[in-house]
Amino acid sequence: MHGSPTQGLLGDAMATVSADIDARFDRRLRVPDDPRADLYHAMRHAAIGGGKRLRPLLLCATADLFGVSRDCSGEVATAVEAIHVYSLIHDDLPAMDDDDLRRGKPTVHKAYDEATAILAGDCLHALAFEILADPDTHADPFVRAELVMELARASGPGGMAGGQMMDLVAERMTFDLATVTRLQQMKTGALIGVSVEMGAILGRVPPEGRTGLRGYAHDLGLAFQIADDLLDAEGDEAVAGKKLRKDEGAGKETFLSLLGIDRAREQCRMLVDQAVQHLHGYGPEAEVLRAVARYVVERDR
Amino acid sequence: MHGSPTQGLLGDAMATVSADIDARFDRRLRVPDDPRADLYHAMRHAAIGGGKRLRPLLLCATADLFGVSRDCSGEVATAVEAIHVYSLIHDDLPAMDDDDLRRGKPTVHKAYDEATAILAGDCLHALAFEILADPDTHADPFVRAELVMELARASGPGGMAGGQMMDLVAERMTFDLATVTRLQQMKTGALIGVSVEMGAILGRVPPEGRTGLRGYAHDLGLAFQIADDLLDAEGDEAVAGKKLRKDEGAGKETFLSLLGIDRAREQCRMLVDQAVQHLHGYGPEAEVLRAVARYVVERDR
Repeated sequence: MHGSPTQGLLGDAMATVSADIDARFDRRLRVPDDPRADLYHAMRHAAIGGGKRLRPLLLCATADLFGVSRDCSGEVATAVEAIHVYSLIHDDLPAMDDDDLRRGKPTVHKAYDEATAILAGDCLHALAFEILADPDTHADPFVRAELVMELARASGPGGMAGGQMMDLVAERMTFDLATVTRLQQMKTGALIGVSVEMGAILGRVPPEGRTGLRGYAHDLGLAFQIADDLLDAEGDEAVAGKKLRKDEGAGKETFLSLLGIDRAREQCRMLVDQAVQHLHGYGPEAEVLRAVARYVVERDR
Repeated sequence: MHGSPTQGLLGDAMATVSADIDARFDRRLRVPDDPRADLYHAMRHAAIGGGKRLRPLLLCATADLFGVSRDCSGEVATAVEAIHVYSLIHDDLPAMDDDDLRRGKPTVHKAYDEATAILAGDCLHALAFEILADPDTHADPFVRAELVMELARASGPGGMAGGQMMDLVAERMTFDLATVTRLQQMKTGALIGVSVEMGAILGRVPPEGRTGLRGYAHDLGLAFQIADDLLDAEGDEAVAGKKLRKDEGAGKETFLSLLGIDRAREQCRMLVDQAVQHLHGYGPEAEVLRAVARYVVERDR
């Protein structure tokens, strides 16, 4: 975090959300005194005490716009983060990206074993939907069902997991800019988009009232991915807490390889400006969402 | 299938449900003309045209008791089967049970590759909840949310996936009969139980009216697992369509190793009788459920 007022605001918002998500995972993942103990330890290893919690922050900050209590939005944000964490566990597996380091710690299959990592991912996946469908999370079953459907769509073959499949294929096929854009919109954009969408659902915003927020999330998602590519090429592994320079080695087309570093950086800045403009209908209450967008181009991890 | 009237009834019921589930997966899993094609082919390979469809049959036969349309129960049953199929794909992975053959065909990671198998499982997992939360599946959001919660609980760390974790641990620890029973109730019993439960939810049966059905499902689940152990020890691999004699090699305690073959068979029969007795409150409309229970001790695959 830097020292400017916006980043103070963002830093505070991030710290609050992170502590809340940690506390909720801690409560949901109490280690049982039986042969499943390692399964829970593995879930806790991956879910607690790490990451930027960008998706929960987006969800909670969006829900805040409409006066939704953090009691409720925090729980829903935990479900979205559970999906994100499960996808990281599975993506890190030897058969997938084969990563040893994540968020500065050994990946789950390194700290435990592959079988435990597969199951820990599957369990966090199920946990996400259990949380969303729970009457304690939201009193209105219509809202609960809508949250489940949106998150299932965003994380399945038409969203995150489908994007991950395209990413695997990208290593043996040459994609053009349109295909790389679609890949990234699915792989990371879908879950970022649904985080904002779920905040709006909690705020009882009808679909026709979500246009600005959707535009914001769409541009933010792409900017985030371009920034990720830039970080992969220019970042510091010690700060990032994970292995970098992977795209280069895999011979994959990325925004960077297709646009070059200068145009990629320019494109990222333009998308962030556009994302902020989509929030023109909101006043100071949307300052955290604006700060998130600006943070995306400036972050170093 | 044998020739007695009950088995004719069961055979017909199984054939109808199997064709329905195949048609629904076929409709839900149209292969897109993009880099995700193999992901969909992999899901189709695992989901279409195989298996006994025991869980969908239980769900539909239970829902039939209360006059629920097959239009609706068939869709919900597809969600449960999607969870079952995802768990088979992940269980067959090299890091888990390392199986090459399933339902008489190569396992997904053999027919495709490990990464595709992991993602195909994850996608079927998400698809299950997308189906349940879809307003087209059931008009009442309260029912949809309840279905999601029950299925998420039954398949997560407190159910199927937790049982699978215990099963992995069983290879390096010695479990007593109580622990093996608990393991099996979680690993296979939870999904069998929730299939019946979800049929009752569709039938708008209040929890206090589900006692008989729950008793039936509980005893059926255990009988099913003991029969599976017997099949593993005595069955024909060509008929079963999968590798057998695995428990022996892994040095795991099972119902068979703990009870011996004769007491295991006796226990299985007793559980089936008990399961049928739990249905005493139902008339001829429950004949398919009774036939399923009897089939469990007689099946050869």
